[in-house]
Amino acid sequence: MVENRVPDSSRRSERSRRAIHDAALGLVAEVGYPRTTIEAIAARAGVGKQTIYRWWPSKAAVLLEAFVALGERTAAQSGADGAQGIPDTGDLAADLKAVLRATVDELNDPAFEAPTRALAAAGIVDPQVGAEFVQKLLDPGLQLYIARLRAAQRAGQVRADADPRIAVELLVGPLTHRWLLRTLPLTREYADAVVDHVVRGLAP
Amino acid sequence: MVENRVPDSSRRSERSRRAIHDAALGLVAEVGYPRTTIEAIAARAGVGKQTIYRWWPSKAAVLLEAFVALGERTAAQSGADGAQGIPDTGDLAADLKAVLRATVDELNDPAFEAPTRALAAAGIVDPQVGAEFVQKLLDPGLQLYIARLRAAQRAGQVRADADPRIAVELLVGPLTHRWLLRTLPLTREYADAVVDHVVRGLAP
Repeated sequence: MVENRVPDSSRRSERSRRAIHDAALGLVAEVGYPRTTIEAIAARAGVGKQTIYRWWPSKAAVLLEAFVALGERTAAQSGADGAQGIPDTGDLAADLKAVLRATVDELNDPAFEAPTRALAAAGIVDPQVGAEFVQKLLDPGLQLYIARLRAAQRAGQVRADADPRIAVELLVGPLTHRWLLRTLPLTREYADAVVDHVVRGLAP
Repeated sequence: MVENRVPDSSRRSERSRRAIHDAALGLVAEVGYPRTTIEAIAARAGVGKQTIYRWWPSKAAVLLEAFVALGERTAAQSGADGAQGIPDTGDLAADLKAVLRATVDELNDPAFEAPTRALAAAGIVDPQVGAEFVQKLLDPGLQLYIARLRAAQRAGQVRADADPRIAVELLVGPLTHRWLLRTLPLTREYADAVVDHVVRGLAP
């Protein structure tokens, strides 16, 4: 086992890091982003606040890292291969529906919903938080869609003059709009309808 | 002139109402929604806070009314006919582009941008504010698109099995996503590309 060779201090650091992540996610869900302070995160995690200042430049950075780690753990537990890309079975609509249905389930999961809303809302009014949110959390996912759409384009299933960047926004934009603004319930059926529509518009 | 017959107290009320609207919009743009209090609105508007409590049930209600009034004044000044519906020249894509380009200009207008962002962010984390935002500000606009899409459906330009409610979200969702999350600049060219794509997917 490699584990015995990890120095104690390194294991302690990892425990502290995880405790800080959990404290940040819990606080933002309970009291909202504006009232989640470094002091409160430190107190709940049982660390000194200098530990947090040493490891992260800002509250937003803590929360974003906590989110990325949470997403990785969830993906590992569910066996999902989000990090490895969107599956390519040769059926573009089916592949997109599989991924967007999973996104619907995640957005409707209370463990994700409150902190995701808090972080999105913070980014909407604070350009710096918004830029980190996009760069670290949103864009890596969008790139996976773009890769899948390019593959479909090479396979002749998507017209050559379609812009994959705009196509991915046509897929995720309506779902985000419905979820963030709560205009109507966000369901798997809605995700399917959006995919059917967009894929029809992309046909050669 | 009718004006001379308006009682003084009614004119004073209208002046106060307008001052309260302006104070609410100004504060939310400057200090954000959470720090915009009834007390601060009253102080800036030069009225007692009881006046505000007598006329509105909540801070969100003040701000929403201020927004609706601002939208009406802007529409009146520009001669736009948003309240009367989306034009129907018989060319669905051209009509949608005209309206969405105007929306792009409005969202990029600093007078609208800061308070709209603040209100949207507040609604994202507070379901009650969100519901009022959707009911009073968002849905009336969406209904205008739905009416225009239904007319195109009757004219045989949109396939009969398309759901106009989903179609309108395909139009406004991507623009809202790009603007709220600041993924890329929101331009008129982007609005045109979204319309072209969606109208292609709606063709019979």
